[in-house]
Amino acid sequence: MKNLSDTIIALSTPQGEGAIAVIRLSGKEALTLCDKVFFGKKLINQKSHTAHFGTIKNEGGQIVDEVLITIFKNPQSYTGEDVCEISCHGSSYIVQQILQLMIRQGARHAQPGEFTLRAFMNGKMDLSQAEAVADLIASESASSHDIAMKQMRGGITNEISHLRQELIDFAALIELELDFGEEDVEFADRGKLEKLIIKINTYIKTLMSSFDLGNAIKHGINTVIAGRPNAGKSTLLNALLNEERAIVSDIAGTTRDTIEETLNIKGITFRLIDTAGIRDATDQIEAVGVRKTYETAKKSSILIYVFDYMDLEPPQIKEDLDKLYVEGMKVVLLENKFDLYSSMHENAQWNFDQNRQEKSKKENWSPIYDEWKEKGFVRTYSSSQEKIYVEQLKEKLYELAVGETGLQNNTIISNVRHYDALQSAHQSLQQALDNLTQGISGDFVAMDIRHALQHLGEITGEISTDDLLESIFSRFCIGK
Amino acid sequence: MKNLSDTIIALSTPQGEGAIAVIRLSGKEALTLCDKVFFGKKLINQKSHTAHFGTIKNEGGQIVDEVLITIFKNPQSYTGEDVCEISCHGSSYIVQQILQLMIRQGARHAQPGEFTLRAFMNGKMDLSQAEAVADLIASESASSHDIAMKQMRGGITNEISHLRQELIDFAALIELELDFGEEDVEFADRGKLEKLIIKINTYIKTLMSSFDLGNAIKHGINTVIAGRPNAGKSTLLNALLNEERAIVSDIAGTTRDTIEETLNIKGITFRLIDTAGIRDATDQIEAVGVRKTYETAKKSSILIYVFDYMDLEPPQIKEDLDKLYVEGMKVVLLENKFDLYSSMHENAQWNFDQNRQEKSKKENWSPIYDEWKEKGFVRTYSSSQEKIYVEQLKEKLYELAVGETGLQNNTIISNVRHYDALQSAHQSLQQALDNLTQGISGDFVAMDIRHALQHLGEITGEISTDDLLESIFSRFCIGK
Repeated sequence: MKNLSDTIIALSTPQGEGAIAVIRLSGKEALTLCDKVFFGKKLINQKSHTAHFGTIKNEGGQIVDEVLITIFKNPQSYTGEDVCEISCHGSSYIVQQILQLMIRQGARHAQPGEFTLRAFMNGKMDLSQAEAVADLIASESASSHDIAMKQMRGGITNEISHLRQELIDFAALIELELDFGEEDVEFADRGKLEKLIIKINTYIKTLMSSFDLGNAIKHGINTVIAGRPNAGKSTLLNALLNEERAIVSDIAGTTRDTIEETLNIKGITFRLIDTAGIRDATDQIEAVGVRKTYETAKKSSILIYVFDYMDLEPPQIKEDLDKLYVEGMKVVLLENKFDLYSSMHENAQWNFDQNRQEKSKKENWSPIYDEWKEKGFVRTYSSSQEKIYVEQLKEKLYELAVGETGLQNNTIISNVRHYDALQSAHQSLQQALDNLTQGISGDFVAMDIRHALQHLGEITGEISTDDLLESIFSRFCIGK
Repeated sequence: MKNLSDTIIALSTPQGEGAIAVIRLSGKEALTLCDKVFFGKKLINQKSHTAHFGTIKNEGGQIVDEVLITIFKNPQSYTGEDVCEISCHGSSYIVQQILQLMIRQGARHAQPGEFTLRAFMNGKMDLSQAEAVADLIASESASSHDIAMKQMRGGITNEISHLRQELIDFAALIELELDFGEEDVEFADRGKLEKLIIKINTYIKTLMSSFDLGNAIKHGINTVIAGRPNAGKSTLLNALLNEERAIVSDIAGTTRDTIEETLNIKGITFRLIDTAGIRDATDQIEAVGVRKTYETAKKSSILIYVFDYMDLEPPQIKEDLDKLYVEGMKVVLLENKFDLYSSMHENAQWNFDQNRQEKSKKENWSPIYDEWKEKGFVRTYSSSQEKIYVEQLKEKLYELAVGETGLQNNTIISNVRHYDALQSAHQSLQQALDNLTQGISGDFVAMDIRHALQHLGEITGEISTDDLLESIFSRFCIGK
C-alpha cells in the first residue's frame, strides 16, 4: 500500500504553456511546506477555502513566481487531507522550479491518481466514484459524460449497496444457523431467501445487459460504411459529417487513430470507418491493409451497407454482406440515390418496380428477405440532395445504438471491472440458488452468498486489495 | 478599443486532458453569471478570495460538472474587476460545455491577452509589466525568467518613470517660457538642462546596450560548433551535453526547431548548432542545405572553432574562420584532444613545440595571432577525457555571453519594442542637445523633449495607442 502519511505534490493542469498552471499539494505538511516558501500571509493561520496572493521564493531568496495559493483544510478537501492549490504562471519552467523547490522542502511527487486514491482511502468517495473521475475526464461526448457523472455522484454505489445490504441481512441469519449447526434450526426463511436471490440476480442481469451500451458509449460506436464502388459512400459520409463538423471540431483533443471520422448523434459518438476500396481490392487478397480493414469492419457494432437499388439485386447484396457480417452486428441496408429513383418518370418507376417484383417472384428472393428480417436488418433510404433522409438515417443509427428503452434514467455499467464483478456475483448467487433448491446444507449456501457479497463489495471498494487499487489508480493521470 | 464593459471568459490552463482545468471570467457580471448556473452558495454574497464547491447545471438542469469556484471582488483581482475562477475536471468536453453555457448566459469569449489588457486598463500594472507576464510564461531558463520577473515586478518601469519625471519638470519650465514667448525670458537653466539630458542619454545608452544580452537570454544564444572532420566536434558536443541532459529534459516543451541541442549554463540557454559537414561538403557548394547551415552559422553570436593543434597550423585555421566569421561574432578557438597532446612523451612534446615555434617565426604567423587577439578571440583547451576542460569551456561561454559585468542587479532590456522606444528617445534627446548647444530657440527644444517623453512613456504605457495595445496583447495566449 502506498504511504499515506507524507505530503504529495503534482501539477494538476495539463502540461504546456497557458495563462495559469495549478500545482496541488495534499497531506499533513501541505500548509507548513507552503509556508516555508510562500511570502504573504501565514497560510497555517488562514481559514479553509480562502485564496492568498504572494510570492514563492527559493532557498536563495529569488522570486520564483507571484502566485495565488488556495487552502483547503482537512477534512473539507478533495482528498480529505490538508490541500494547497498553488496557482502560478503557466510556464513549464516555473512549474518545474516550484515542484523541485517543494520536493527539496520535503514533499513527494505524487503517483498517478494518488490524490483520488487518498480521497478513497479517507472515505471521500467509494471506488466506483473514484473510477468515474477518470472516466469523466476522458469523456468526449454528452452520453459518456452523463454515465460518468451519474457514477461519480453515486449512481451505481447506491444500487449496489442496497442489494448488498439486503443480502447481508439474510446472510447473517444463515451464519447464525451455522453457529447452531448441531441443532438443525433454520432462522433464515428459505422461500424468502430464494425470492430475494432471484430478485437480486434479475437486477444484476439488467445491469450487466447495460454494459454493451455503456461500453459503446464510453468508447464510441464503431460503424462501418461499406458498399460497392460508386454506391455513394463518400457522399453519404460527407452528408453525415457536414452538419456535424462544426460541433465535432468544438471538442478539442478528439483523437482519430485509424478511424476516419467521428459523428455525434444526440450525444453519442459514432466512429465512422470508411471502407472505400474493400470491393476494389478483392483481387489482391494478400494485401495486409485490406485484410486489416475487413478485420476492423468485423469488430464494428453497426454496418451501413450502401447500395443503389437500380444497380444491385438482393442476391448480389447478400453476397457482399456475407463477407462483412458477423453475429450480433446491427445492419442498415441503405438504399442510396433515392432521389434519382423517385424522380424518375412515374411510368418508368412503375415499370421498374413491376419488373423487380416479377423477378423477385421468379427467382424466389423471399428467403433472402426473410433472413434479413430475422437478423433485424434495418432498411432505409438516403439521398445526398435531401437532408431529411440524412436525419432519418441518424435517427435509425441512434435507435440501433441505444435500443428501444434509450438512455433515460437507467443505471448504465460502462466499466469492464464492474461487469466482471457483477458476473461473478451473478454466478455465486446462481450457485446459491441451485444449492437451495437442491436442499444442500446451509454452509454451502452461506459460502456462495459470502462470495457474492465480496464481488459486489469490490465494485464500490468496500472490499479491496492493494493490487486492485494499484491497477485502478495507475490508470489515472498524475495530479488527479 | 476593445469593449471593457462586458464580461469575458476563457480557459486559462493549457488545452488537453488533466486533473483540473481553470476557466476564468472577468467583468461586472462575472458573479451574477456564475450564480445563474452554479448550485451551491450564492456567490454574490460571498467574500472576496473564497472558494466554493458546488455543481454547474445547464439550462436543462443536467449537471455539467462538480466544480470549485474561487471569487475575487473588484478591485482585488488580477484584472481589477470581479473575477471568478471555475476549477472543473480537466476534460475538453466539460470545458467546452461550461464555456458554451456561460456564453449563452451572456459572457463573451476573451481575446488573447484580454485579461491582462484589462489589468493594464484598470491600472493594475503598466505596459512593460503586462508584457513581462507573457515573457514570464514563455521563459525557459533561469536568466530569461529572472529578466521577466524583474520587469513584471516593475524594474524597468521604475527606471523609466524616474527619468521621465526629471524631464517633465524641466519641460514644464520650457513650455512656460513659450507662453511668455514675446518677453524672451528663460525659466529653464540651459546648463542644468544640458547636463540632465546628457545624464539621461547616458543612462538610456546603458539600457540599450543591455538589449543584445537581454535578447540573447530571452531567445537563447546561438552557438555554432565548427571544425574540420575528426576535429572532435561530436565528442565535444556530447561532453557538453552529457552532464546537462538530465537538467534540460526536466524542462518540458523546449522546442528545438532546426537547432540541434540546447545547453544551460548557469541559467543561460545556449542553442548549440552542430555544423558537422560544413567542411565535408565544400565541393558541392550548390547544395542549398549547406548554404543554409552557413547562413545559420553567420547569424550566431558565438562560434566555437574546434581544431587539433597537431594537425592544423594557424594559416589553415584562418582560412576556415574567414568562411564563418562575421563582425561582432565571439569566437572560441578550442584546441581539442589536448589530452593526447599533453600525454605525449615529454621529449616528443618538447620537440613539437620547438618545431612549431621555429615554423611560426619562419612563416611569420604573428599577424594572424595579432588579428585574433584584436578581434577578442578566446583560446582554450578541451579534452573529452577530462571534465575540467569541459567546465572551463562552459565558464568561457558564460563569460562571452554575459560580458564582464555579468547579470547582477542591472536592469536588462529584452523587449525589442522597448529598445526601439529607447532609441527614439535617445535620438530626440540628442536633437534637443544639439539645438541647445547651437542656441536654437526654446520651442524646438521643447518639441524634442516632448518627443523624448512620448517615446519613454510608450514603454510603460503612460502613452499608448489602440494599435500599440492591439499589437502587444494579440501576442498573448487566450485566457491570460
